[in-house]
Amino acid sequence: MDGAQGRPGRVFMLRIDDGEKLVENLGSYIRENDISTGSVSLVGAVKWARIVTPDIEKKPMPDRESMLEKYMEVVGHGDIVGGKVHIHAAFGEKGGNGYCGHLVEAEVFVFVEAVIQEIEGIEARREHDPKTGFKKLVLNS
Amino acid sequence: MDGAQGRPGRVFMLRIDDGEKLVENLGSYIRENDISTGSVSLVGAVKWARIVTPDIEKKPMPDRESMLEKYMEVVGHGDIVGGKVHIHAAFGEKGGNGYCGHLVEAEVFVFVEAVIQEIEGIEARREHDPKTGFKKLVLNS
Amino acid sequence: MDGAQGRPGRVFMLRIDDGEKLVENLGSYIRENDISTGSVSLVGAVKWARIVTPDIEKKPMPDRESMLEKYMEVVGHGDIVGGKVHIHAAFGEKGGNGYCGHLVEAEVFVFVEAVIQEIEGIEARREHDPKTGFKKLVLNS
Repeated sequence: MDGAQGRPGRVFMLRIDDGEKLVENLGSYIRENDISTGSVSLVGAVKWARIVTPDIEKKPMPDRESMLEKYMEVVGHGDIVGGKVHIHAAFGEKGGNGYCGHLVEAEVFVFVEAVIQEIEGIEARREHDPKTGFKKLVLNS
Repeated sequence: MDGAQGRPGRVFMLRIDDGEKLVENLGSYIRENDISTGSVSLVGAVKWARIVTPDIEKKPMPDRESMLEKYMEVVGHGDIVGGKVHIHAAFGEKGGNGYCGHLVEAEVFVFVEAVIQEIEGIEARREHDPKTGFKKLVLNS
Repeated sequence: MDGAQGRPGRVFMLRIDDGEKLVENLGSYIRENDISTGSVSLVGAVKWARIVTPDIEKKPMPDRESMLEKYMEVVGHGDIVGGKVHIHAAFGEKGGNGYCGHLVEAEVFVFVEAVIQEIEGIEARREHDPKTGFKKLVLNS
């Protein structure tokens, strides 16, 4: 476990439009506004979503990408580290049946709305972690 | 895509009680406290929930309302625009099976607890969007 | 319904590592940093999760604990009251099928990352509520 202490910075509200890529556009907005560290929450709907979920039978990377090819409501949360966004989301298809995963990309249906809270005073980055094979969040206050 | 920049304002913590309507009471609290723009997160349980999920076979409004008639845990997130709250939530029934959707209304089971973060410096409103047929988030810093 | 008004305090970003207990470590960090009132959001993955979901056939306590014995992605949100964290989370197993519940404990897979927003100016505690049999959030500004 490792942690760092900062303070709230700017807050952004964002609308991503029908047919636009959710993660790509959110990432562009974050870069254009120089948001280095923060958290993000989003609500909306998508026409499809590419997600990653754990698949411990796959080696060496214990993850697997899945394509959810359906219109779904979405509620997601993530963090921003080194200007890059990392989102996990829950999805509900017609009737409400639920899905969840690490969001790789999705196409917006109608609208997605996001709120970004910038965090000041924390320098966060990701570094390759030999132990897990994944990018590790490294923190300095 | 469109976005606007603001800053954190007041923070509210709220308890909604057993048998009370979740969205109606949250909406009343937001109006009473003059929270125009913000974000909200909630955790708790519900006795039923009315949700909207996409149904692209229905015209002209490609949405469908579903009634989840079961006791469920809930975790939700949303935004506040023009003093009105818009929440998407994930639900777990007995044993954990999951649902998700745009939350229209729910009856609280035991308690729901919410945290509201007001956003200052952003003027947000919803306007009818002829292209999608839905209300569109319009933003000004 | 009851609510209280405060203001944003410190913000923390936290990494919990592979094999560590999610709720236990998050709770330790909150105590070590004297975070009395706040909200928390988390994303990551887990090897298993113990959750509570409503089971209204059980008396007197209408809840039931379930063990989700599978590797899952997770996105969660909760509040901090009297220095104790209370989290509900959505989970996605291999392929994306979703679960949701009140998170009792989980073992971290690879990493879990959390953002904690402290709330100043609200004194919150939990008290036994004879009406529901649960702990009730009691608030003072």
